[in-house]
Amino acid sequence: MHADWIAVDWGTSNLRAWAIQEGAAVAEAASDKGMGVLAPDAFEPALLEVIGPWLGAEPVRVVASGMVGARQGWQEAPYVTVPCAPTGARAVRPDVADPRLDVTILPGLAQDNPADVMRGEETQIAGYLAVDPGFDGIICLPGTHTKWVHVSAGEVVSFRTFMTGELFALLSTASVLRHSVGKGWDDKAFAEAVDDAMGKPEAIAARLFALRAEALLADLGEGTATARLSGLLIGAELAAARAYWLGQRIVLVGEDRQVSHYAKALASLGAVAESADATQATLAGLAAAHARLQEQS
Amino acid sequence: MHADWIAVDWGTSNLRAWAIQEGAAVAEAASDKGMGVLAPDAFEPALLEVIGPWLGAEPVRVVASGMVGARQGWQEAPYVTVPCAPTGARAVRPDVADPRLDVTILPGLAQDNPADVMRGEETQIAGYLAVDPGFDGIICLPGTHTKWVHVSAGEVVSFRTFMTGELFALLSTASVLRHSVGKGWDDKAFAEAVDDAMGKPEAIAARLFALRAEALLADLGEGTATARLSGLLIGAELAAARAYWLGQRIVLVGEDRQVSHYAKALASLGAVAESADATQATLAGLAAAHARLQEQS
Repeated sequence: MHADWIAVDWGTSNLRAWAIQEGAAVAEAASDKGMGVLAPDAFEPALLEVIGPWLGAEPVRVVASGMVGARQGWQEAPYVTVPCAPTGARAVRPDVADPRLDVTILPGLAQDNPADVMRGEETQIAGYLAVDPGFDGIICLPGTHTKWVHVSAGEVVSFRTFMTGELFALLSTASVLRHSVGKGWDDKAFAEAVDDAMGKPEAIAARLFALRAEALLADLGEGTATARLSGLLIGAELAAARAYWLGQRIVLVGEDRQVSHYAKALASLGAVAESADATQATLAGLAAAHARLQEQS
Repeated sequence: MHADWIAVDWGTSNLRAWAIQEGAAVAEAASDKGMGVLAPDAFEPALLEVIGPWLGAEPVRVVASGMVGARQGWQEAPYVTVPCAPTGARAVRPDVADPRLDVTILPGLAQDNPADVMRGEETQIAGYLAVDPGFDGIICLPGTHTKWVHVSAGEVVSFRTFMTGELFALLSTASVLRHSVGKGWDDKAFAEAVDDAMGKPEAIAARLFALRAEALLADLGEGTATARLSGLLIGAELAAARAYWLGQRIVLVGEDRQVSHYAKALASLGAVAESADATQATLAGLAAAHARLQEQS
């Protein structure tokens, strides 16, 4: 099975690839060789391990986005500064040893003030715009580093990154709260915590330790503590991102569970959010970049 | 060299002990066998390793405070609920195999609403009150879990815990910000960040990632990023703890560097803070507890 071209989403902690034939993904493969664990000369072998079975005698174009293009990645694909289209400029082509490969790495986006960057999400935004080109509003991409992105007239106008996902992961696995959070979930506790943090965002620093204290003193359940921790962090984010979501059309693009939490939190504030599949957005964005590269060559 | 009695400060990550003769600490020893790494039956050997040289034929009283009295510690010393004197009630005496030991573990304090707990800081508060018994105001104990404590008429009236120190440690060593923070310090950046976070505490979630973005885009220095991260977290804490410090007499008890940061942050808000030595406060608090135990026996 040979691919017409290969789409690659290469982040810090893993690598996902799709073989594309006649515009459709016909095979998928992945590995945990993310940018974070690879030296520059290890990227080509890591890619070949995953996509080797899809290569034929002729060179195959590989279009990759994400942290693979960071300064510590395979080859730096310098940021493009907003306002600009989410993809389209300044892709780089790293040298490869294997003649069957023709690799292009897409650049990320940067914003000067306030300083901000993204790598990978711009491809999902391009993918969403490929199916809804006239979109005017906010695309929110929940994740380790959640992005709120203002899109208008086919361009990214501005964006802001929140470390909510990483904070949740650190607090629930590496802080004293790891003893108090765990399996389970509590919708009511989540909604109350969102409301709490929205109303008094400065108090979040004090409310965090209360999760531990209530577990010790009042047998607070692990599911309730988990939902409350998530609600406090998302609520604080929504308080800070108010200018992004208030009165705007909002589309959430991300992993199902995270999207559902953001949708519920926004709904409790009277904001209706649509959602779009993250993998489809990634693939559509890489396909749009591939089509443009074909036109140029 | 035999001790009249032995003072022990036994936290999650280490153990410090002092041999006391005629009311003065004449020797000090420490180990990294904190509560966090010990099974219940490992506490007595860990203690003997440290204080063995100070023991004679007769049993010596050992007075310990801190996480050693937690549920996962040597033996649980149940919390005493505020309002109450910082120490004085319900100490526990674990069984010991070595006849030279007579161990007492002091309890921590709990607060029902909002739920909160402390173990170890109550001893420092008692120690501060031993030298300033009429104190009426706020004792702030910066640390991994910073405590703001309202003290009046010899009692702890209420308190609140902030995870500021632990958040700083996690963000600067385990998050994406570890690439951007490092050695050095920048007083101006610290003061601006405190001001920033006080004025708009909800924005802290967005300002954190900006440290990474500015390092990538504008070569933000490691010392400046470190000071700004610290300032954002302490500023958010001060915004939430305003009811504690506004218009109050404030004494800071903690490690010099942390105390200096809190003092500067408070000064920038027009609040003057005194400070007291943390080790002396611990020793004075353990001595006060020892004196009371002697009276009772």
